[in-house]
Amino acid sequence: MTPVTSVNHAFRLAARPVGLPKDSDWSFTEEPAPEPGDDEVLVKIHYISLDPAMRGWMNEGRSYIRPVDLGAVMRAGTVGQVIASRHPGFSAGDYVAGTQGVQEVAVSPGGHLIKVDPRVAPLEVYLSTLGMPGMTAYFGLLDVGQPVPGDTVVVSAAAGAVGQVVGQIAKLKGCRAVGIAGGPEKCRYLVEELGFDAAIDYKNDNVRAGLKEHCPDRVNVYFDNVGGEILDTVLTRLARGARIIICGSISQYNNDGPPRGPSNYMALLVDRARMQGFVVFDYMPRYAEAALEMARWMYEGKLKSREDVVEGIERFPEALLKLFRGENFGKLLIKVNGA
Amino acid sequence: MTPVTSVNHAFRLAARPVGLPKDSDWSFTEEPAPEPGDDEVLVKIHYISLDPAMRGWMNEGRSYIRPVDLGAVMRAGTVGQVIASRHPGFSAGDYVAGTQGVQEVAVSPGGHLIKVDPRVAPLEVYLSTLGMPGMTAYFGLLDVGQPVPGDTVVVSAAAGAVGQVVGQIAKLKGCRAVGIAGGPEKCRYLVEELGFDAAIDYKNDNVRAGLKEHCPDRVNVYFDNVGGEILDTVLTRLARGARIIICGSISQYNNDGPPRGPSNYMALLVDRARMQGFVVFDYMPRYAEAALEMARWMYEGKLKSREDVVEGIERFPEALLKLFRGENFGKLLIKVNGA
Repeated sequence: MTPVTSVNHAFRLAARPVGLPKDSDWSFTEEPAPEPGDDEVLVKIHYISLDPAMRGWMNEGRSYIRPVDLGAVMRAGTVGQVIASRHPGFSAGDYVAGTQGVQEVAVSPGGHLIKVDPRVAPLEVYLSTLGMPGMTAYFGLLDVGQPVPGDTVVVSAAAGAVGQVVGQIAKLKGCRAVGIAGGPEKCRYLVEELGFDAAIDYKNDNVRAGLKEHCPDRVNVYFDNVGGEILDTVLTRLARGARIIICGSISQYNNDGPPRGPSNYMALLVDRARMQGFVVFDYMPRYAEAALEMARWMYEGKLKSREDVVEGIERFPEALLKLFRGENFGKLLIKVNGA
Repeated sequence: MTPVTSVNHAFRLAARPVGLPKDSDWSFTEEPAPEPGDDEVLVKIHYISLDPAMRGWMNEGRSYIRPVDLGAVMRAGTVGQVIASRHPGFSAGDYVAGTQGVQEVAVSPGGHLIKVDPRVAPLEVYLSTLGMPGMTAYFGLLDVGQPVPGDTVVVSAAAGAVGQVVGQIAKLKGCRAVGIAGGPEKCRYLVEELGFDAAIDYKNDNVRAGLKEHCPDRVNVYFDNVGGEILDTVLTRLARGARIIICGSISQYNNDGPPRGPSNYMALLVDRARMQGFVVFDYMPRYAEAALEMARWMYEGKLKSREDVVEGIERFPEALLKLFRGENFGKLLIKVNGA
């Protein structure tokens, strides 16, 4: 049981960043811990999820989700433990996942939280393979990408939270899995630990040559997390009828100017291919189905989940930049002090 | 019956153009008319189709069809009349459509030609609404775009060969049709003659404002013939689950550098949309089905076809440039001298 906390620290959005978020785009605030109202639950946050999508949430303008308001606590996925509950579904001591933001304690309506079980998987996995990144990989690959056995599936940011799961599911579904990741250590991990057929080190190798070598029958499914030059390169290696899943474009999130569009998009015509976007929240009614299947794979040792844990909420601004430099190895999380 | 021709004039590809095709990229040759061999047919060509896709065929490199070889007669769709036949399926006097190139007379294997009937539609319509552009509109819109009644369908190059058919089929299928075209005359034509709900004059009006005004429920289906800035603008106005049909990108064909990719492609994610390319040749087994339905619509007065006819094969190089300047109004054709 977590001791009751009387003070809360939070990162709030102080300014809308231009380019990479700077320290001055955040304010780190201290305030009394909140108290739960009717049907609300007070949670001590243990882990905070750091996701590329956060960069988009900091911008104004129409997107798939409301921007974070200036002055508001930065939105983030979280897992933690219930300190006090005024909702009949939760009791002190329960573990819960939610979107409680970059802070130490938070109050949420019970309806916004789901219980998680640390005996099934370590708490941090509920922000990783059994959480939003895992759901993103599962539904993006299977529902949007529709791979069939024998297909070649390529995924970028392959050693990241989503990419690691995409490649492993591709293998479980009888596909050839090729990852694109930065650095020899990540590439070795993908092949030796996760069972990818090949990995291409975009920081040191020529991606186009790597695709030629490792995808001799070209690319049937490309799960794109990065956009930019890598997307353009994969477009030159599509197989007839290929499916490109647009999940993210991290290489473009911190541009000062407009993002780089894929110059080679007319390959969609030449190769009778499609490029399709999706938002994982649309699949919420099916999360349980995916989580059960993935938990079973994990239990059977067929699906591994790697997390990259940074200790201390005060390191949030710096940790977030790790994502945009491609320095995280596995799902990037903050472990909150005292959790 | 066309008199036998003893001399043939042809446009051959002399050089691979950089940017817009120049006169020096062509050679205009005179040679004896060919004679048909076994199973071949000699045709006097009446109309030659000028298509944006021709620009791509002039480039080297992998595409959906072989490039035209240097020195070869420029590839083009044609209709004409049989002069002499050594194929059992054709007789002198028959009218035929084929891909016989930019020349006055040509020999082809009978299996490469199809008979057409000038009593059903004027000969030029077999290169237009009952030909490749019509098939492109029909299968691109219905098969790739999958419009449902009530959808808003937007088409660019709307007064061109493909665009005019896309908008009219959209209306026949119970959709709202909005065309993007250059100049008030074309826009008036689309609305007053072809029954489009609205038209946006990209040369004189703000396309984004026009889309806001004429597509209040945003855009469900966008049939893209142009790429570039217009594609980027439509991407900002997509409805949830929109389908973008990639048919062409005429605004980019004559760039010196790489084509402009759609900067706003992440709208595919925000709007859960897809962008899909196709090649009309894949639908060849279903051409007859489409032609029958479209001929019936034409007979019933529900589908109009407009052609823009340039007289004289010697005007081919100049006529082709009309396409890239957006100066054609309807399907652009060359009428061969003496046809």
